[in-house]
Amino acid sequence: MLHTLSIRSKEHLLQLLVFAIGVAIWFAPVPEGLKPQAWHLFAIFITAILAVIVNATSILTSSIIASSLAVLTGTLTPQQAYSGFAEDFILLIIVAFLIARGVIKSGLGKRIAFLIIKKFGKSTLGLSYSIIAADMFISPAFPSNTARSGVLFPIVNALAIDSGSKIADGTRKKLGSYLMMSSMAGLTLSSTLWLTAMAANPAGAKMAQSYGVEISYGSWALAASLPILLLFFLVPWILFKIYPPEITKTPNAPKIAQEALTKMGKVSKNEWTMAATFIGMVFLWVMAESFGFNKTAVAFMGLGVLMLSNIFTLEDMKEEGNALGTLIWFAILFSLSVNLDALGFMSWIGSNISAMLVGLSWPFVYLSLILSYVFIHYFFVSQTAQMLALFSVFLGVGINTGVPSELMALMLLFATNFNAIITPQGSSANVIYVGSGYIEAGEIYKVGGIITLVNTLVFLSVGSAWILFIS
Amino acid sequence: MLHTLSIRSKEHLLQLLVFAIGVAIWFAPVPEGLKPQAWHLFAIFITAILAVIVNATSILTSSIIASSLAVLTGTLTPQQAYSGFAEDFILLIIVAFLIARGVIKSGLGKRIAFLIIKKFGKSTLGLSYSIIAADMFISPAFPSNTARSGVLFPIVNALAIDSGSKIADGTRKKLGSYLMMSSMAGLTLSSTLWLTAMAANPAGAKMAQSYGVEISYGSWALAASLPILLLFFLVPWILFKIYPPEITKTPNAPKIAQEALTKMGKVSKNEWTMAATFIGMVFLWVMAESFGFNKTAVAFMGLGVLMLSNIFTLEDMKEEGNALGTLIWFAILFSLSVNLDALGFMSWIGSNISAMLVGLSWPFVYLSLILSYVFIHYFFVSQTAQMLALFSVFLGVGINTGVPSELMALMLLFATNFNAIITPQGSSANVIYVGSGYIEAGEIYKVGGIITLVNTLVFLSVGSAWILFIS
Repeated sequence: MLHTLSIRSKEHLLQLLVFAIGVAIWFAPVPEGLKPQAWHLFAIFITAILAVIVNATSILTSSIIASSLAVLTGTLTPQQAYSGFAEDFILLIIVAFLIARGVIKSGLGKRIAFLIIKKFGKSTLGLSYSIIAADMFISPAFPSNTARSGVLFPIVNALAIDSGSKIADGTRKKLGSYLMMSSMAGLTLSSTLWLTAMAANPAGAKMAQSYGVEISYGSWALAASLPILLLFFLVPWILFKIYPPEITKTPNAPKIAQEALTKMGKVSKNEWTMAATFIGMVFLWVMAESFGFNKTAVAFMGLGVLMLSNIFTLEDMKEEGNALGTLIWFAILFSLSVNLDALGFMSWIGSNISAMLVGLSWPFVYLSLILSYVFIHYFFVSQTAQMLALFSVFLGVGINTGVPSELMALMLLFATNFNAIITPQGSSANVIYVGSGYIEAGEIYKVGGIITLVNTLVFLSVGSAWILFIS
Repeated sequence: MLHTLSIRSKEHLLQLLVFAIGVAIWFAPVPEGLKPQAWHLFAIFITAILAVIVNATSILTSSIIASSLAVLTGTLTPQQAYSGFAEDFILLIIVAFLIARGVIKSGLGKRIAFLIIKKFGKSTLGLSYSIIAADMFISPAFPSNTARSGVLFPIVNALAIDSGSKIADGTRKKLGSYLMMSSMAGLTLSSTLWLTAMAANPAGAKMAQSYGVEISYGSWALAASLPILLLFFLVPWILFKIYPPEITKTPNAPKIAQEALTKMGKVSKNEWTMAATFIGMVFLWVMAESFGFNKTAVAFMGLGVLMLSNIFTLEDMKEEGNALGTLIWFAILFSLSVNLDALGFMSWIGSNISAMLVGLSWPFVYLSLILSYVFIHYFFVSQTAQMLALFSVFLGVGINTGVPSELMALMLLFATNFNAIITPQGSSANVIYVGSGYIEAGEIYKVGGIITLVNTLVFLSVGSAWILFIS
């Protein structure tokens, strides 16, 4: 009589099933070379991820229960389990959320959105290309993809809202979902393109030196240029096919935008304040590395200015519950992932892969290493953490088995960026998009998974050939 | 032409004035015995508090700017400034916030509120007494006043809402504000009454042993009993005079409550689930100390259960922006206060006070020490932190100058609890009430200040005489 069960009962059955799988993993024999604690944490973490993938629970519910179980079973101490809440880059995302509301509310978001629509708004695909192009243009001076997502998101958000695609009335798929997914995918490309577009890139380039690989600003950009150029054209188009917006042609949009701009009239005082605050923040973010400013403190200051100017009010704060939900699940998953790494789980996987590859031909080893590196990202809640944990191990194995060292190093560093859309938590830059409600976590596992695959295939084929050709 | 200025301009003038005071403190000569860093942090912290007291900005705005300045000026590292976000007792409050919504939404809060109104609802004062009595009844088995506030708040909140006193329609002062303030004041009394009603109490009793003072469960309760009994009757009545509810007599309320209960009918499935979850959480919280459970993990588990049962949904989460605001300001002020202590500022104040008291008669020393201890709480964002930082110093100074050791020890430990309502952030138990919106932060500085004064006067007079009499 299973077909007579209500949707709620089916959901509970699915939850029970996922839980049973988790219990089975927990009690399975601990693999050799792993501490029981690492295995138990893995059981909790993978069950939480599985619950989200099969849509048994929301990512928030899943994370909350995972954190609780990790602490109550003694797998993690409370300090370890809650450490993510104090991570400054996570707080940066949350503050960026709040500032995005200021961009919308001040009217500035509307104005910028109308200006973009006026110029590129004849088709949804055109809008998507223009967003990604803008991202690539600002990324060399923006060594934090998290902060960059905080700049792009409010504009994409305003574009969606002003095109009549909103969360509240169920029209997210009209345009908003597609544009958000495009921008998120675009961030993986812009981060891959420049040595200075993501914090882990220069760190990785430095680590490569000890293996005799010299990577300069120019050699990085040259190596990335061809595959990224290809993907720049490919990715928005593929998304258009597999995750289509409901509105595709908007021939009148530029005219409507022009009329709306005329109606908006002169730039208001709030818009000037918002623009000045925003430009100030961006300027300090760009300077952050050189002058040792903390990016989160800069964001807090920006928010403080918006609050003093009544652009962001306590009333606005009340409606930002989503930001809290995001903080909770992201901080929890980050803490679990960091501890999984600290307990040696990640390096255990790395060395197991290495062991399997001994004695095989280099192209096969190269392929296996890159594919493993990409897919292991399912378990990482930080691109930088994965790079720090696995880059050296993988690079060493690759070079030892004969893979050309520059190819191996560059491709691993590129993969650190182009695999970032494989999960909702795969990059802190994703989080602001997911938190908006335009994209469901489950959709990223599917659509983001496909984009990751496309990125990987292009880089493995065209990218590898190109790097071997120029080096 | 100052009178022609708009309200907004006046507000900005006030903000400028407060900022100027802060700058003056920052650049004033650093007092001897203090590191410049400690002085600068003090300047930032006191300016933030001042801005709230004179109502120049909200506590959220003030905290955000303070944190940003502390980091950007290099006074604190980002790690130090954001550490509060990972404190498990702060997360406990935030989760309690979310669970309170479940209590309301499931209908259970309504039912309990109607039952209380049915029995004690003829007057607002009667409701206030019944809430505080309930608190005192459960507190001996509840060694966390934070967790206890999480139990009381949803009931008080339901009482307010079901009496037609709401935030949204501007009727908070009808009944809700008064009941919230009463319950918050009641928590200072219940925490003072029992050795096991607050986490710092048994820790302090243990520290007193090294000064030859033995404090047992019974001797603590006996010493606290008389002044607390007096204050139990006094405090709700004083609040009724200085912070009056707009509705005072509700002779028909019990009848209306009975009718509403009849209309509600049988206890629903959601109410049962909520009740079972809540009782389970309370049971685990009570057991937490003995079995080593983490209270926050228990709360996360409770929230997880409510989410799985759809009593708390993602839609509910969206409206919990206030909880995020609370997390931000409380975590920031806590971090600032902890670091002020770590930089030696607190002990510097303590030793300065000691130095001034050498050679004076013991009753005068006793009075000065207790009053100082009470008022220093303006700078502490944790009762336990103040006790750990100052209890030993103050106790030592007191005993050395001839204050009876038991009197000195007990009174300092009582003061650790009864001064908790002096500021919004003075106890983590306050925070959930302030975050509700029924009480404004500025009101606590005034009304809570008066209650602290009353508590202090009763303890210094009746309390001191009573302790000397029984010992």
